[in-house]
This record gives sequence, C-alpha cells and structure tokens, in this order.
Amino acid sequence: MKVRPQSFDAPRDRDKGAFTHGTHNRQYTTGFAAESPPTSASKVSSLDHLAARKLLQVIGQPPIRLVLWDGSAISSGVDEPLATLSFRDRGSLYLTLLRPELYWGDLYSAGRVEVDGDLVGLLDAVYRGLQIADNRGWLKLVNESLGHRKIRNTFRRAADNIHHHYDIGNDFYRLWLDEEAMQYTCAYYPDPAMTLEEAQIAKMSHVCRKLQLKPGDRVVEAGCGWGGFALYMAKHHGVSVRSYNISRQQVNYARENAEALGLAGRVEYVLDDYRNIRGEYDVFVSVGMLEHVGPNYYPALGRIIDNCLTPGGRGLIHSIGRNSPKPMNAWIERRIFPGAYPPTLREMMNIFETSRFCVLDVENLRMHYALTLKAWLKRFELQADRVEEMMDKRFVRTWRLYLAGSRAAFTSGRLQLFQILFTREENNAIPWSRTYQYTEDANKNYDQVVTDA
Amino acid sequence: MKVRPQSFDAPRDRDKGAFTHGTHNRQYTTGFAAESPPTSASKVSSLDHLAARKLLQVIGQPPIRLVLWDGSAISSGVDEPLATLSFRDRGSLYLTLLRPELYWGDLYSAGRVEVDGDLVGLLDAVYRGLQIADNRGWLKLVNESLGHRKIRNTFRRAADNIHHHYDIGNDFYRLWLDEEAMQYTCAYYPDPAMTLEEAQIAKMSHVCRKLQLKPGDRVVEAGCGWGGFALYMAKHHGVSVRSYNISRQQVNYARENAEALGLAGRVEYVLDDYRNIRGEYDVFVSVGMLEHVGPNYYPALGRIIDNCLTPGGRGLIHSIGRNSPKPMNAWIERRIFPGAYPPTLREMMNIFETSRFCVLDVENLRMHYALTLKAWLKRFELQADRVEEMMDKRFVRTWRLYLAGSRAAFTSGRLQLFQILFTREENNAIPWSRTYQYTEDANKNYDQVVTDA
Repeated sequence: MKVRPQSFDAPRDRDKGAFTHGTHNRQYTTGFAAESPPTSASKVSSLDHLAARKLLQVIGQPPIRLVLWDGSAISSGVDEPLATLSFRDRGSLYLTLLRPELYWGDLYSAGRVEVDGDLVGLLDAVYRGLQIADNRGWLKLVNESLGHRKIRNTFRRAADNIHHHYDIGNDFYRLWLDEEAMQYTCAYYPDPAMTLEEAQIAKMSHVCRKLQLKPGDRVVEAGCGWGGFALYMAKHHGVSVRSYNISRQQVNYARENAEALGLAGRVEYVLDDYRNIRGEYDVFVSVGMLEHVGPNYYPALGRIIDNCLTPGGRGLIHSIGRNSPKPMNAWIERRIFPGAYPPTLREMMNIFETSRFCVLDVENLRMHYALTLKAWLKRFELQADRVEEMMDKRFVRTWRLYLAGSRAAFTSGRLQLFQILFTREENNAIPWSRTYQYTEDANKNYDQVVTDA
Repeated sequence: MKVRPQSFDAPRDRDKGAFTHGTHNRQYTTGFAAESPPTSASKVSSLDHLAARKLLQVIGQPPIRLVLWDGSAISSGVDEPLATLSFRDRGSLYLTLLRPELYWGDLYSAGRVEVDGDLVGLLDAVYRGLQIADNRGWLKLVNESLGHRKIRNTFRRAADNIHHHYDIGNDFYRLWLDEEAMQYTCAYYPDPAMTLEEAQIAKMSHVCRKLQLKPGDRVVEAGCGWGGFALYMAKHHGVSVRSYNISRQQVNYARENAEALGLAGRVEYVLDDYRNIRGEYDVFVSVGMLEHVGPNYYPALGRIIDNCLTPGGRGLIHSIGRNSPKPMNAWIERRIFPGAYPPTLREMMNIFETSRFCVLDVENLRMHYALTLKAWLKRFELQADRVEEMMDKRFVRTWRLYLAGSRAAFTSGRLQLFQILFTREENNAIPWSRTYQYTEDANKNYDQVVTDA
C-alpha cells in the first residue's frame, strides 16, 4: 500500500487547543487543521537533525527512514527501510518527539506526517523498539504519564462514548466488516487461511462450544454490536437471548434483522446499559464490551453477573487486554474509543474474585486479532474512496492509522485478546477435559459430570 | 470407611501451648496430647447443648449429627446424616466453636473429636455451609483473621518448611503415591475411569504437549519431587532437564533413579532453591512448587524466569489456587505444609505481569485434584496399619484428615488447580489453536507459526 503525501496547513496557534472536551459532554475534535502548511518555508537546522536522530533513538532504531521538510533524510543505517516517515514541518517533528502517543496520530490524520511503504510494519517496529527503549529512557515516563484521561464511565459518559464510535453509521461499518454477521470483534482462525467470514463464524461457534449452549438455555449478552452473535446463538443452538447495548443505531439494525429473519420471538435487543441487566439466565456472555467498562466498574460487573446467573450457569467474557497494565493509547482513547481501557488478566480478575466465580479456562487469541485486523484493513482500503465520499479525507486517514496501529499492537504483543470462561464456585458440572471444544460432537463430554469425584 | 472412636486424655493446661515454634527454626508440634480424657467426668449442661446448636448454625446446618460426651445427640433435622461427629469432652466442643480452623484438626489428630461415617462428605458439607454462613456470621471474621501465620519464605525458612513435609521418608510416600512416577501433584483424568497411574502419566503428557517439547530442548524444572517428571520428559521427548529441589531425601532418591535408568547424563538434579536457578533454557516448568513460594516472592520468581528463558521459550506453572484470596487453612499450614499459600489467579499474575510475560492459556483442573486425592486416600487407608507401625496412631489420623480435607476442599470449590502456559510478549510462534493439546500428533500445529499474520 502506497500512500501519497499531501500538503496541509497547520497554524501553530491551533496546536495547543487541539484537544478540547467539556466536562459533561465531551467533544472529540479531530485535532490539527488539515490545510496546507508552508512546507519548505522553514530551513532545516542542525538542531532539527539532532532531534530526528534522537527520535530514532527513542523508538529503538527501527529500520525506517526519516525525511524532513527540506527533503533531507536520516535512517537507522539499514539498506532497505520498511517505510519512509516524512515530517512536513518542524512542528510535526517536535510534537512527535515530545508527545508521540498523543500527537502523532493527529499529525498523521492531518497529513502533516506521512508514511510511504509498510505502515503496519513501521508501527510494529516502533512498538517493539519502544518496549526495549522504554526500559531506559526518561521519555518513556513522559509519554506514559501525560496525555491519558481518567477513565470513569458513568451511565451518561458511557452513552456518549459508545455513541461516538458505534453510531458513526451502519453503512460505513458494512463496507468492511464481514458480510455474515457484522462482527466488530476478534475472529477465530484455527486455520489462518480462512476468510474473514469463515473466521467470524468459527469465533461464534468457538464461544458457543465453550459455553456449551443447550436448547432452551436463557442467554444474556452484554454488548451485542449489530446483533449477529445473538441471532447465531438462537438459530444454531435453540436458545433465547436478551442482548443489552447502548448504541441506538446498532440496536435498530439488530431489531430489523431479527424481525426479517423471524427470530424476534427468541432474540430481544434491549437499548440499555449492562448495569441495568435484570432477570435470570443460564448463560452470561460478553464479546468485546469489557474494553468500554473501565476497571473501577469490574467488581460491579461481577455482582451483576452474580445476580443474574443460575447456580449451574456458565459465563464467558471476551476482551482485548494487556500483559502489563497501561492505559489505552492516548490518541485511540481520544479519537476512536473514548473511555476505553484494555485490562490485564490481573485487573480482569476483579470481576470474578469479588463474587467468588471460578475461572475455568483462559485463552489468549492475540494473533487472531492481528489476522482479523489484516482482513478489515484490506477491505477498508478497497473502500477508501467510498469512505472519503461518505466522510472526508481526514476520517479515512484517521481510520487507516487506527486499523493499522491496532494490527501492529497485536503483532508486537502490546495488546492481547482474552477469552475467559467461568462458572460458579459450587458448580461441579465441569467437563473432564477441553476436548469438547475441539471435536465435532461438542456437547458429548458435557453430561459426563462429576458425580463420583 | 468407619473410624472407631478412641479415648484420649487432654490436660487443659496444655491446650494453650499447643502450637509452639521458635523464630529461626520453627518446630511443628502435633498439638494436643493423645491420652485418655475423663470422658464422662463432666456433665453436659444446657449451655453445652446451646453451643452445639450454635456450631451447627455456624457451619451452615450441614446434614450431620453431633454427639456430646454424655452420648446426647443434636442434628440438623435430616433423617440420614452423612456422618456423626462426636465430641469426647467439653473443651473439644468449645475449641471447635471458637477456633475451628486452628484447633479442630489437632482435636481430631488427638482423638478428642471423632467422625463416624463419611469424613470427606462431612468436610465437603461443612465447607459449603461455611461459604454460605461466611457471608453473615461474625464468627467468620474471627476464624479468618486469627490463627494464620505470616508467610515469609526466606531461603532458610523455605528449607525448613520443605524438610518438614517432604523429608518425612520416601518409604512412607511410596506406600500410597502412584507406582509409575511418584507424582505428589494433581493428576489429569481426561477419562475419570483412569487409574491413578494412568492419570499421572496423562498429566505429564498434557504438560509436555502444552509446552511443545522438542528433542534437544533445555528444560529447567523448579521443584521436582522425586524426579519422576524430569525422567519422563527426558525419556519421551528427548530433552535435557535440570531440576531444582531443596528436599534432600527427594533429590537423593531422584539421582539414584536417574542413574539406574541410565538417564543421569540428561537429567541433573540440583539440591538448591529455585531462587538460585542459573543458565539458559528453552522451557521453564514448575509443577506443584508455587504453593510453597509465597506471594511476596512472585515478582522475584518472574524475574528468575525472565533471566533464564530464551526469546522463543515457553513456560508452565501448575499450582493449587483459590477463587478469592484467603490464607491456607491454618491447621494445614502448621501441621502439614508450613509456609504454604494457595494464590488466586490475580495474585499469580504478579509473576507474569511484572516481567511482561504473555499468558497464553489457563486451565483449571480442580475436579482432577479431587479424583487424585480420592485415589491417594484409598491407598493410604489400605496402608494405614503399616503407616501406624512406621509412625504412630496420631500421624495416621493427621494424614487421614489432611487427605480427606484436601479432597473436600476441591469438591466444594474452596481450592482450585491452575495450569498457566506462558511465553514472552514478543514471541509470535504460537499455535493457531489448542487442538494440538488434544490430538495424537501433538506437535503438528506448532510449526504453523505466524509468518503472515
């Protein structure tokens, strides 16, 4: 993928005010102005070259080439760099050096920095380099401590956050998500040659197997996207599903779909917060919602599950996570997923340990998300012109960077994908092995419960 | 199993001093004297009956019958109680009521309380009852907060602790552990009809599959018991193993065994603390040692693994654990496993998150430990007379209670068994699914690593 650089203007006095948000109703501006900057107006000094070299050092000397606004180039000394990173003006270089996590994304969106070559490869190399450089540089502390907003997802804040991302428009998401079930979560590729559609079906099937759905089971789903998984469960496993979601556009879409497929009698979509889940269920499932909950609400989430699950009930939470605690990338949290936080397993355990749930099985599907994002990014690029028509050029660049950066975060190990299967502490009806997850006859092992252990 | 009550004497003035230990070299006395108490010397009062009823209430009204020292009985009102619990003197009733976790085991060892009927069933019912009663009674707080010693396993303390339990005598353990590999850790019963020998082999095989051992791999094992697993790995997977253990008797036994089997060239047993592990290894494995480490040493353990593991290395830790944090049962920690602590997953993550390891897979084998203990207890009872000859009557009672209580702890969900598979964050050579753990051709999926994700 080759991305042609373009010229934009970025008046200096706008830099500081780029990120504006109110207290009660945060606005998510898209950062720097996208107008033509005076590209060659400012001469490159020896200090600028020093700054560029320092930048390469901070990011761990990845195999890339830096090009400054006068065309002069600096590289880590490799013959074939993965990509060329161009700074169109002095401000873009120094903002990147001082606050890369916060500003670089906006600079990219505005076209003030440009990448020629392998964008994912560049980001992967930078992420890996940062992990190594992280351990020694003082800039690490600066980058990590500044720019992150406090995550506190009250009911209203949560509604704003979800609206910001998921209500962009169903037509937009339909352009590049799978056609089968519009799954906007990690697919499962037991065979990496699978298509996105196959892998999303495999994901839904994998989760259903883990949960050992039986006809008649009452399932509650926390966060349901466009409702595809709820329909899959009802159709293939004969269960009834109640799905909670606070994205109005998604719920409208899901309801229409259920109606059209004649499944509205068994699948109910509730436009409400997960904290308002009521009723009694045999199964609790949540695929890709925990990222939006925020760690301070995990014990509350545990109590909600505790309140609604039957004594023999099963639960599964599928979520992006981390190996060690760190806030969401500041740019992603501001521009893409406000209020999001990918927890570590340690943090996730606050859901389960406070309500004495028994964790049966944890699976890390990190590389599967890398493949999913590869598929999404490919489809997105094929539709880039249509997206630009629907939105604008800056939106395309922002989303390109978000998808490419997410993919690099998974390939470099910065992000993980955890599926956690759990049940109540007292429940001894546990399969004797996980073979049932990997055989055709998925429920065979289930009834062989502990009676004589 | 019917256990006949016997008479013992317990002078009151010894009760207080039952638990004596020095600062540097703790002694583990076995508690109350085992002599004949004046069984009917003390008349049962209405206060004693009230105390007995209170006891039933505190333990959640399990289906058992209490019998006091004058032969009078109190029950929860069920027709067929699981077991009869007899108190031989007033002291045994009140000590049980006030500090059950600490004193009841010693009273049982000394024969001042007796159980007629299903000992495991009684303990399982009490554990379940306590979990429910726990949430309301003030006695919970008393029981949970008192009697637990601080776990601080320095090098010297660790050596004392391990000596206390594992150096009791190889001949004793040989009486009731599996004949195949003398595994004193949870077996794996993918089929619950397996024999103990089959299930211990299945456990070793399961761990080796998870770790995807390849011929030539250098394996380091932290805690090796009598060395059986190290020999298994060397013999069946062509790896070389260095195993650390601080039990002199176990290491001597293991070395002789390796010599006799002609494997001494590929399996080295080192009589040293896990904190002194040196060298570089492709695989780190620890089966049943973490319980003896203590949570304050988890970050240090993480650093030790970090120091010795190759970039593409794999690791597995197999340990007893809990669903929510709680010290080891106070009696077990004093009489059986000094210094032991079964951590929650949240606590275990301090091993991995501080050194940025990537947790790939967690499996909970709780019910497998219940079956393992069932097999051990059965063999132990068959050898009880020989054990009494080797040791004494009190030792037999202590170990009967320890094995039965452990089994009940697993069936009631008080204890868990976690296997945690991990690798370095940067390592993308991860199988695409866990099918490799469940197929004959265990390594088939392994080389299908991520090259194009």
